Amino acid sequence: MRLLRFQVDTQLGSVARIGALDPSGTQVVDLAAAYAALRRSQGVDPARAEQVAAEIFAPNMRDFIALGTWGLDQARRALEFALGPAGAPVIYPLSGVRLLAPVLPQVLRDCLAFEEHTKNAYARLNLPVPPAWYELPVYYKGNPLMVVGPDADIRWPAYSQVIDYELEIAIVIGPGGQDIPAAEAHRHIYGVTILNDFSARDIQAKEMAVGLGPAKGKDFAYALGPWVVTMDEVPDLYNLEMVARVNGEVWSRGNTGTIYWRFDRIIEHISAGEMLAPGDVIGSGTVGNGCGLELGRFLKPGDVVELEVSGIGVLRNRVIR
Amino acid sequence: MRLLRFQVDTQLGSVARIGALDPSGTQVVDLAAAYAALRRSQGVDPARAEQVAAEIFAPNMRDFIALGTWGLDQARRALEFALGPAGAPVIYPLSGVRLLAPVLPQVLRDCLAFEEHTKNAYARLNLPVPPAWYELPVYYKGNPLMVVGPDADIRWPAYSQVIDYELEIAIVIGPGGQDIPAAEAHRHIYGVTILNDFSARDIQAKEMAVGLGPAKGKDFAYALGPWVVTMDEVPDLYNLEMVARVNGEVWSRGNTGTIYWRFDRIIEHISAGEMLAPGDVIGSGTVGNGCGLELGRFLKPGDVVELEVSGIGVLRNRVIR
Repeated sequence: MRLLRFQVDTQLGSVARIGALDPSGTQVVDLAAAYAALRRSQGVDPARAEQVAAEIFAPNMRDFIALGTWGLDQARRALEFALGPAGAPVIYPLSGVRLLAPVLPQVLRDCLAFEEHTKNAYARLNLPVPPAWYELPVYYKGNPLMVVGPDADIRWPAYSQVIDYELEIAIVIGPGGQDIPAAEAHRHIYGVTILNDFSARDIQAKEMAVGLGPAKGKDFAYALGPWVVTMDEVPDLYNLEMVARVNGEVWSRGNTGTIYWRFDRIIEHISAGEMLAPGDVIGSGTVGNGCGLELGRFLKPGDVVELEVSGIGVLRNRVIR
Repeated sequence: MRLLRFQVDTQLGSVARIGALDPSGTQVVDLAAAYAALRRSQGVDPARAEQVAAEIFAPNMRDFIALGTWGLDQARRALEFALGPAGAPVIYPLSGVRLLAPVLPQVLRDCLAFEEHTKNAYARLNLPVPPAWYELPVYYKGNPLMVVGPDADIRWPAYSQVIDYELEIAIVIGPGGQDIPAAEAHRHIYGVTILNDFSARDIQAKEMAVGLGPAKGKDFAYALGPWVVTMDEVPDLYNLEMVARVNGEVWSRGNTGTIYWRFDRIIEHISAGEMLAPGDVIGSGTVGNGCGLELGRFLKPGDVVELEVSGIGVLRNRVIR
């Protein structure tokens, strides 16, 4: 299933809804509305059907994800009902909806799991890769309040001169847990999406020189989307083609198979003595040559960055000043 | 006002409540219960009084803090009513309540704002203080799901041999905002509490060698408390005595006045291009000589660490294996 969040504007304000793509990939089903309609058709009181549907298909997505396979089963029934003869009122054309970030995580972690990127990035600083990089899958945490979705404009932070993109995939955690062994980690991966970890390279370099963060080097925006593809629709997490285009021109190409630290090891590492929660997002870090820093070229105001991952989709954002 | 969270065990499970200390510092008033009683005494329907009180005095505290001075005014009225003739049922002796972390932040940031600590810590690594430290108030972000309260036992993480405490104060953000100038920053500080930023020094060193985080070096526990003292009861944020005791023996002494990066500059820095939210917590970083790393001695299982800050209180935690 391809799960997404979208915005509906009403006379009482804008609300977030959660939806699923239809099999053709051209239509969005409003899952709460479809589920309420399904239950009404089975004799549930209309007001109670709305209430239960709203509780299940929680607009932050992470509370829906916390329902696990039971929640997914409800979503499949809602989707099936919506695509049947009575479903038309709860379907929107994808081209007509405003997508939001597909999940609002409580904790957003981002790793540095690709060796080629790590080598290239340290080489730009005239430094060797620190031996500790090979010992543990190091990561930092982003500000989850700064997650934005597909087509969101990224505000160029006034304190930076050097803005870059980063081509990454991200996994979304399903069942929460602590002290998860690598062999069990796959049970905790709910789905995959795309992360553009926009970076302010000048301030990031200062933060990393001190050894904390990065924070201001990253926290102005994390673009996530366009949707979460559940694991049953990802044939091989480690064979996904990755492309970054700037204004239509290919700048980066990579494949998830080149990852050094796989997500099973990452989950084992993160969850040691610490809770991973449903809906938490873990970025892979940049694929080799997946950012301007490695290419010696950077973004300028007005640039449109598209990240495409095979089988997942395209995440498009424009940088504005 | 000294605002806190505490746990009440009922036959339906444990619930978190928010409370205030009475002026003597020996009793806790359950603010939602007191507020509901006050409004009932004014003729509000009892069930509606409970509902409104529960909404105002939200158990995560941050949603109460988001009510700003209006919320504080409601708290003062509730406290006053509780301390009057009809208030007894909503008052607990402090010695009988189990305190929780006084606020559950969405984002937990921790700085490195004291020069002496910074010099000492880098000296232990045989490194000079990086010039960037003097350019910007660098910080990292903790895992807000790992915040614990007074008297909570701290689980020694299995992956570490070297556990340390850190003696810090923390501010709690009141009104949210973005691009807050230093001159306006004081309007965004709601109150002060104490932070023990427990650290796993062995893994922290590896993370900082790579330049990301720290994460596993910190995220096993953040102790916060015992309460939030609102700014009207803090005569001078930059003249607070700080003491750390381990098993009753003084290990560290400091004063907030030795801080290099004050919170007005820190708030300006953090909020540049990024939302600060009500209830967010910002730690000062360790005061000079405020951790075992600087003293060449570390904690062992069973140690009890007390951090005391004048005018704030004592935060006590035990490390267990």
